[in-house]
Amino acid sequence: MNESIIASARQRAIEMLSRANIVLSEEEKQNIEIADLGMDDIENVGLEIVQYINNERYCAKELVEFPWQICLEHRHPKVSETNPGKMETFRCRWGEVYLYMSGEATPNPKARVPEYYKPYMTGWKEVILYPGEQFTIPKDTLHWFQAGPEGCIVSEFSSPSTDENDVFTDPRVKRV
Amino acid sequence: MNESIIASARQRAIEMLSRANIVLSEEEKQNIEIADLGMDDIENVGLEIVQYINNERYCAKELVEFPWQICLEHRHPKVSETNPGKMETFRCRWGEVYLYMSGEATPNPKARVPEYYKPYMTGWKEVILYPGEQFTIPKDTLHWFQAGPEGCIVSEFSSPSTDENDVFTDPRVKRV
Repeated sequence: MNESIIASARQRAIEMLSRANIVLSEEEKQNIEIADLGMDDIENVGLEIVQYINNERYCAKELVEFPWQICLEHRHPKVSETNPGKMETFRCRWGEVYLYMSGEATPNPKARVPEYYKPYMTGWKEVILYPGEQFTIPKDTLHWFQAGPEGCIVSEFSSPSTDENDVFTDPRVKRV
Repeated sequence: MNESIIASARQRAIEMLSRANIVLSEEEKQNIEIADLGMDDIENVGLEIVQYINNERYCAKELVEFPWQICLEHRHPKVSETNPGKMETFRCRWGEVYLYMSGEATPNPKARVPEYYKPYMTGWKEVILYPGEQFTIPKDTLHWFQAGPEGCIVSEFSSPSTDENDVFTDPRVKRV
């Protein structure tokens, strides 16, 4: 991504967070991570991240997704004897989010996935989250999510984030 | 506390959360914990808690404090070889909160503590948090906090909560 795409995505995320009445410091606004997952297609794929805290015990973030933007399928495998892999809870704060994971496929899911990405979306068990609803991803389970037509803001509460250990289904992804 | 005091405190917390645009499910609203710390003086002491998640890895809550309401001084000691004690980050979402802990006392602190509680407030190092500001309490450190004139809403991100292990300075406190 070039600098102007990053700046524009960041500005758009700041506006969505403001609309949802989530207050950030100026420093936090300027540090919003624009993660395109190596696809250089931020309109369709990636996420915008405000990381509040990530220490050795816990992690908390706001995740912003533009309308129909997708966070591609991945899982958080066991890392070591003392780290069983990241565990995470998604709480929808604004908009709507369609969450998918391994398991019995939901008929007529709400997601709209461009053909280019579809081959690497294997989990189609759907959970829809509206504001005030939340879901905890089962351990080491493949999952992905897509915002609805207005985009979404999701709080993520979790054990520590170690992005370098995430395993994506699509081999084209570059996370870190 | 009798049932009508609890119901009224819960309603007041619901209104404050709504004013801050924090969306809760109906079930969450009805389950807001009204913790008076055994003092039966909820106007002055205690807190109103929405617990989003508390599992074996992490915990996330919204804490509501009425105007000038105080969460009394306590610490989270080491529990066992595998549990070094609760670690927590407070992020102010709405209003203002005055946080105090052990360390060099701040001159002219903003807190207004009723005489009945003052003997058990030992930490006077002040950190003031406005919306968008946060602070992580150092390990096993005595701390307490008081809302400002409009009350406050604070997100707490932490390692798992085990209230029964909290150690309060005031021997009159009953937490669990």
